[in-house]
Amino acid sequence: MSDALLSHPFMSQSALEACRDDDLVASMLAFELALARVQEGVGALPAGSAGRMAAALEHHNFDTAAIARGIASGGNAAIPFVKAGRAALPDELKACWHQGATSQDVVDSALMHLLTPRLASLDGLLERCRNAVLALMRDHEQTPMVGRTLMQQALPMTFGVKAAQWGIGLERARRRLGDIAAEGLPVQFGGAVGVHSGWGEQGLELMQALAEELGLSCPVLPWHTDRQPIHALQTALDAVAGALESLALDVALLTQTEVGEVSEPSAPGMGESSSMPHKRNPVRCALIRGASRRVHGHTTVIIGAVAQPLERGLGEWHAEWAPLSESVLLVEGALEQAATLLEGLEVHPERMAANLALTGGAIMAEPVARLLTPHLGSDRAKALAAEAAETARRQGRPYHEVLHEAPRLPPDISVEQLKAATDPALYIGSSRQQVSKAREWLEQR
Amino acid sequence: MSDALLSHPFMSQSALEACRDDDLVASMLAFELALARVQEGVGALPAGSAGRMAAALEHHNFDTAAIARGIASGGNAAIPFVKAGRAALPDELKACWHQGATSQDVVDSALMHLLTPRLASLDGLLERCRNAVLALMRDHEQTPMVGRTLMQQALPMTFGVKAAQWGIGLERARRRLGDIAAEGLPVQFGGAVGVHSGWGEQGLELMQALAEELGLSCPVLPWHTDRQPIHALQTALDAVAGALESLALDVALLTQTEVGEVSEPSAPGMGESSSMPHKRNPVRCALIRGASRRVHGHTTVIIGAVAQPLERGLGEWHAEWAPLSESVLLVEGALEQAATLLEGLEVHPERMAANLALTGGAIMAEPVARLLTPHLGSDRAKALAAEAAETARRQGRPYHEVLHEAPRLPPDISVEQLKAATDPALYIGSSRQQVSKAREWLEQR
Amino acid sequence: MSDALLSHPFMSQSALEACRDDDLVASMLAFELALARVQEGVGALPAGSAGRMAAALEHHNFDTAAIARGIASGGNAAIPFVKAGRAALPDELKACWHQGATSQDVVDSALMHLLTPRLASLDGLLERCRNAVLALMRDHEQTPMVGRTLMQQALPMTFGVKAAQWGIGLERARRRLGDIAAEGLPVQFGGAVGVHSGWGEQGLELMQALAEELGLSCPVLPWHTDRQPIHALQTALDAVAGALESLALDVALLTQTEVGEVSEPSAPGMGESSSMPHKRNPVRCALIRGASRRVHGHTTVIIGAVAQPLERGLGEWHAEWAPLSESVLLVEGALEQAATLLEGLEVHPERMAANLALTGGAIMAEPVARLLTPHLGSDRAKALAAEAAETARRQGRPYHEVLHEAPRLPPDISVEQLKAATDPALYIGSSRQQVSKAREWLEQR
Amino acid sequence: MSDALLSHPFMSQSALEACRDDDLVASMLAFELALARVQEGVGALPAGSAGRMAAALEHHNFDTAAIARGIASGGNAAIPFVKAGRAALPDELKACWHQGATSQDVVDSALMHLLTPRLASLDGLLERCRNAVLALMRDHEQTPMVGRTLMQQALPMTFGVKAAQWGIGLERARRRLGDIAAEGLPVQFGGAVGVHSGWGEQGLELMQALAEELGLSCPVLPWHTDRQPIHALQTALDAVAGALESLALDVALLTQTEVGEVSEPSAPGMGESSSMPHKRNPVRCALIRGASRRVHGHTTVIIGAVAQPLERGLGEWHAEWAPLSESVLLVEGALEQAATLLEGLEVHPERMAANLALTGGAIMAEPVARLLTPHLGSDRAKALAAEAAETARRQGRPYHEVLHEAPRLPPDISVEQLKAATDPALYIGSSRQQVSKAREWLEQR
Repeated sequence: MSDALLSHPFMSQSALEACRDDDLVASMLAFELALARVQEGVGALPAGSAGRMAAALEHHNFDTAAIARGIASGGNAAIPFVKAGRAALPDELKACWHQGATSQDVVDSALMHLLTPRLASLDGLLERCRNAVLALMRDHEQTPMVGRTLMQQALPMTFGVKAAQWGIGLERARRRLGDIAAEGLPVQFGGAVGVHSGWGEQGLELMQALAEELGLSCPVLPWHTDRQPIHALQTALDAVAGALESLALDVALLTQTEVGEVSEPSAPGMGESSSMPHKRNPVRCALIRGASRRVHGHTTVIIGAVAQPLERGLGEWHAEWAPLSESVLLVEGALEQAATLLEGLEVHPERMAANLALTGGAIMAEPVARLLTPHLGSDRAKALAAEAAETARRQGRPYHEVLHEAPRLPPDISVEQLKAATDPALYIGSSRQQVSKAREWLEQR
Repeated sequence: MSDALLSHPFMSQSALEACRDDDLVASMLAFELALARVQEGVGALPAGSAGRMAAALEHHNFDTAAIARGIASGGNAAIPFVKAGRAALPDELKACWHQGATSQDVVDSALMHLLTPRLASLDGLLERCRNAVLALMRDHEQTPMVGRTLMQQALPMTFGVKAAQWGIGLERARRRLGDIAAEGLPVQFGGAVGVHSGWGEQGLELMQALAEELGLSCPVLPWHTDRQPIHALQTALDAVAGALESLALDVALLTQTEVGEVSEPSAPGMGESSSMPHKRNPVRCALIRGASRRVHGHTTVIIGAVAQPLERGLGEWHAEWAPLSESVLLVEGALEQAATLLEGLEVHPERMAANLALTGGAIMAEPVARLLTPHLGSDRAKALAAEAAETARRQGRPYHEVLHEAPRLPPDISVEQLKAATDPALYIGSSRQQVSKAREWLEQR
Repeated sequence: MSDALLSHPFMSQSALEACRDDDLVASMLAFELALARVQEGVGALPAGSAGRMAAALEHHNFDTAAIARGIASGGNAAIPFVKAGRAALPDELKACWHQGATSQDVVDSALMHLLTPRLASLDGLLERCRNAVLALMRDHEQTPMVGRTLMQQALPMTFGVKAAQWGIGLERARRRLGDIAAEGLPVQFGGAVGVHSGWGEQGLELMQALAEELGLSCPVLPWHTDRQPIHALQTALDAVAGALESLALDVALLTQTEVGEVSEPSAPGMGESSSMPHKRNPVRCALIRGASRRVHGHTTVIIGAVAQPLERGLGEWHAEWAPLSESVLLVEGALEQAATLLEGLEVHPERMAANLALTGGAIMAEPVARLLTPHLGSDRAKALAAEAAETARRQGRPYHEVLHEAPRLPPDISVEQLKAATDPALYIGSSRQQVSKAREWLEQR
Repeated sequence: MSDALLSHPFMSQSALEACRDDDLVASMLAFELALARVQEGVGALPAGSAGRMAAALEHHNFDTAAIARGIASGGNAAIPFVKAGRAALPDELKACWHQGATSQDVVDSALMHLLTPRLASLDGLLERCRNAVLALMRDHEQTPMVGRTLMQQALPMTFGVKAAQWGIGLERARRRLGDIAAEGLPVQFGGAVGVHSGWGEQGLELMQALAEELGLSCPVLPWHTDRQPIHALQTALDAVAGALESLALDVALLTQTEVGEVSEPSAPGMGESSSMPHKRNPVRCALIRGASRRVHGHTTVIIGAVAQPLERGLGEWHAEWAPLSESVLLVEGALEQAATLLEGLEVHPERMAANLALTGGAIMAEPVARLLTPHLGSDRAKALAAEAAETARRQGRPYHEVLHEAPRLPPDISVEQLKAATDPALYIGSSRQQVSKAREWLEQR
């Protein structure tokens, strides 16, 4: 189907290049050759056979299209691949091929082998995001902006804190995914029903050796129908997607024409509207949000397929392949967008200041009321603060001026006090401490 | 990514052939050329320009890969396609190209145009399924089998009723999808913000004419962010997926080695296990179940993306493309499997009979107790029926024989009565009437 | 669990009152008594027994808590309810109770019986929404506002069209749900394995009569494991949720402090912030969005449970109860919010006008360039239009004034022409026709 | 709505008792009183005020129904609760109440406070499951059973390995949830926009102290719209649900009448069918599967709500409450069922043996062919093994006997060799080693 135009644009192009059909075939081959090596290692295959198999197949040109067609009769790619591999071997090596393995051993291991380098790539992109966030936090530690709850202006904060929030979400997801990468994706090897039929106690030993050969981790037991590893991987990817979506939602809201506090980095042709030259569309945000939503959809498939019957899924396993592998590529694509977005984000402190002033002062009515309460009592203080804010907004004048002229203002309140109480930049709570604390945490690991 | 090996095997291969990237480009071109025709029709373009545009572009070789690369900067395929189209036109026609249209007009209309023939194809496959079910109902109207609730043997029914149940689910989904096809997928045409800016009252007229040109339906208004049509289409597809999944679940359960009441049709190489020659795997069921689960995942994306902000989605729209188009191809693929499965399903009445006898008679204890109740009262009747069933099972003898020897059996109960009460084939309730009624309903439309 | 504080606030309170545990018990009783009546009608129960059963049970005080506790051993509410009902009957009627029915007959029928009046209520609320939208369309047919794509200002439209879009989405969902209500929710009656064991050809006749007694529709066959009716109902509810979510998203965006084009209706105490007196939170939008998201989650459960094994679900059926019934109540709750929201929506045309002017004129650069193109050619016309827009924005002056002073302006362009070209109210495309057409469609049914 | 009959039966009853509306109110009160204590601790409230507040409120009878009704106007339970609390305080303490906190601080912290003891309870139940699995592994380390792939009989394994697989899935999920419990659920405290407005650098200090007071963990920063902690918690719960669902699916399949290898523990009245005395329904499996599916639906809500706008969700946050809290109770309910199921599981080795013999020997054709290959070559060996298996099945005779009579049998193959090659109990691969290894891993932590 129209993958290149409808689906792939959300994915990392370099990751796509590394995960083509041919690459999956190469990973299946890597599995089979590693299996032969470890079987030769324990004396189960004649000395030299693994090397001869490698020599015969490493430059063999597998016909991927034919393998794809062959899937129909068995339901997975390993069956036609194994046939093709056996056919390409000299007769004396055929019996050494795919010994003790089942299709799911090949497919699961190949997928884990294919995706392992992607985890490193995801981590690198997440680090780029983190570093970009740290730069934004440093540059805007003291840039006041208005905080918004239920999308309504509420009280001041700093853009440094906003960046820190993005950073913490992303970094938490990075560490979660990192823990999975550190443990290593598991090899699969159990044979027909997962108990190494015909191999006896050698089975577990082979599984261990195979993991080492392939740079994968060794599971406790084969996990043909124990899909906890897939659940953990997919939900960790989903967490990254969620953190990215959170960033993209905020940026999209802040780039609205009426808000204008940040802009996506400009790039030639990027975000242009063909019919409306004044627009700069937050295209990266749209791509990130589109990718994240698809990842969530894939996650529903994976979490609904953890329960697989007895010793092999009957569709549940098959349903995992595209959602899992696409999720990796979608998250990688979204991360590339996010890294560029964060590294080149245009921040507009003057618009932040203008928006802080938009309600005339109403958002500072709370600190003003605090200032007046000891003099007037809580109710009268709140009333005076609110009325003056309304007057300031209507007349377009500074809040502190209007307050200063208020007839009921206690005489011992000075203009300086009023200026201080109405200055959003002085009412940013723990914003600076938060940036510090977040920086320390972000740099920890 | 590895689409051909991991994702496409679940899809209809002929549908894949008809929905390649080039086909989407052709649909986008069809949209633009139809637009020119209708604009020429209302005098908005010089006479003959639409024809000249068609002549210039119909055999133009669009570089799909370049269009795919061009998506990054604008976020959808229409933008680079429109650029490429304009570049390929002679200068005097450039100004006639893509007038009054926005990217979403192109992409939405092209998708609806691409998918319309698929609905006919889905309907054809669903008809094949219905006919195959009708044949099974006819052949097995009187084939007794055991009904199972919570997967436990319960009471007798017929295989005709089981087939009728499959048929009703599939047909109900067919009619639902058919209603959508009959209404027609809607054209999209509204321009930048959906109100035909610059076209005034001509806008709606053009939209109507465009729908006719493209063989699509005309919506009330442009539906850029009113995604009810997509929700209705996707959930109707999902209903088909559900009906197929239901069929595949039943077949998978009935093909279990220990049950063996039906088999998937045998086909050379199909369902073979490389390592275990005695196995015939229900591969079609696995593929159907795999496809259906992926469709459900796609549905979650679509239903979560109905709410799109203001006049254009910011990722929500983008998130629809792959899930919707893949769902069509997955459902079509699953239907092909199901049609073949139903047409060639091997039914084993002898295994059904054997399974009916498996509990020795326990499943007939209810009718036996009914028979005895007028003589013995309810409690004693139930007790006698249950004890005899247990004896029959333990001794492996016919239930009616054991009953006949029961000391407490009322003397006026004849062997014939006992045989009748213990014959599952005589205790199938409304099974025959159900098959009749279902047949009538299935043949209605 | 903390239902009253965490879950119920999103639901319709009047619907909650009508769907308590006692009401479900009453619906189960209605099923059993109707069953007795129709069985008496065909002579299967002694004359008068149904009336005596009703007399014995209609005022019986079922112990709902005891029934709830009794669920554990059988897995559904019908089992303990049936026991309790039988226990409450005089001995001579016990044998007439629950004849030929299975638990799922009771629970499915009772749920359909309980939910049927809710469909009418949903329809009434959707009509209120439609009428409120029609009023907004009428009042604001000519109120210009800016259309926004990817949340960026794009080109003018009217608020009438925006309201029409909401109306169409809601009405389409109303008609879809209305079709289901018109067909009627189906009765369930099939006995243990769905074939009316022991009742023979009377089975289907009883099912029909029972449907009439209960005001439900009669399905083709019992649908114990054919869950297409539930899929259709749930996805139709989900469509309403989506239409509501779409409305709430738009309103939330338009109520943003910086946009301010509409406000939620004010009500005493509603949307107040305890700590920030200047805020008016869009609480109704939050509640609608919260409810809709939960409905979508429920929909994933229902669509994933369409495939149920053989003659009875093993958890799949059980998983439907809460999601389906909660969805009805959530949608009803969200509709109540939406009706009030639409009926009392405060629209601020002056803020719409101000926002249209926000870019100084840039959003009108397209029509200005159109005006100038015949004089200057397309490229120079676009450049002049864009530069003047930028100057107007920087200097805060009217766009037409700046254009008028532009040195390269063709001399034969008058101020009136410039004013006309820069007046958003004159560049609303087919907005008025769209409102007309939408009104006609909305009033159709 | 009908929670007690439709929703609660899947939940833990003891957990329900601990998480009623009153308990949530108590947790909100605990939050407010702890806040007062820590504020008094830093001198922000007069000495003794926290104690006096506690004295005034700890035995105050909050009107939960009134609080529930009050949610409508503000959209969450904290607003009416805070009002009610303030009203109940003597005037001089009112100003000390809820200082610097926002509604979300109260609700999030209260939920985390309410759910913390549940994590311990879940862990305890998971330990019970693990211990029960270890017992099954020990008892059945050498019990042969047939492994089934795509639900077809494949090759022998042991029931010990099957139990080990269940145990590993459950234990992996336990450790994942345990890591979250060990880190601690986080307190929420940030005030209106998350930066402790008006509290300056004291803000983070208060947050830390508050965490300690409440036995919660201290997050890096307030997490009003960084929902990674909720994502991690919910997906960990979902992993448990998945492991349970996997167990329940296997048990349900193995309890089928035709398979009969295990039974749910019998308990008085449990799993009885009112109309069919011979049935024992796997009710616990149905309840587990029903609960798990609902948890998955809730997970889709939570993962779709990670992205929340700016400083407060507008429906996204609200959508989390019921799904998260219900998930905990559903998982706890499912675990109670699972623990009982595993502790009392009836295992039927004789049925396992009978099923191993069902194909007459076909499942042993692979080892027989292995035995014969050195003598006959691979192809003839396979053919002979397969033909004899078919004969054995047809004639109902032992496979080794039929083999022994086969005319082409190499003369130097003894009956003992044939018996050995056809004995499933001798062809269990690494089953014993797997049980050992799994036991070691399970007992690690």
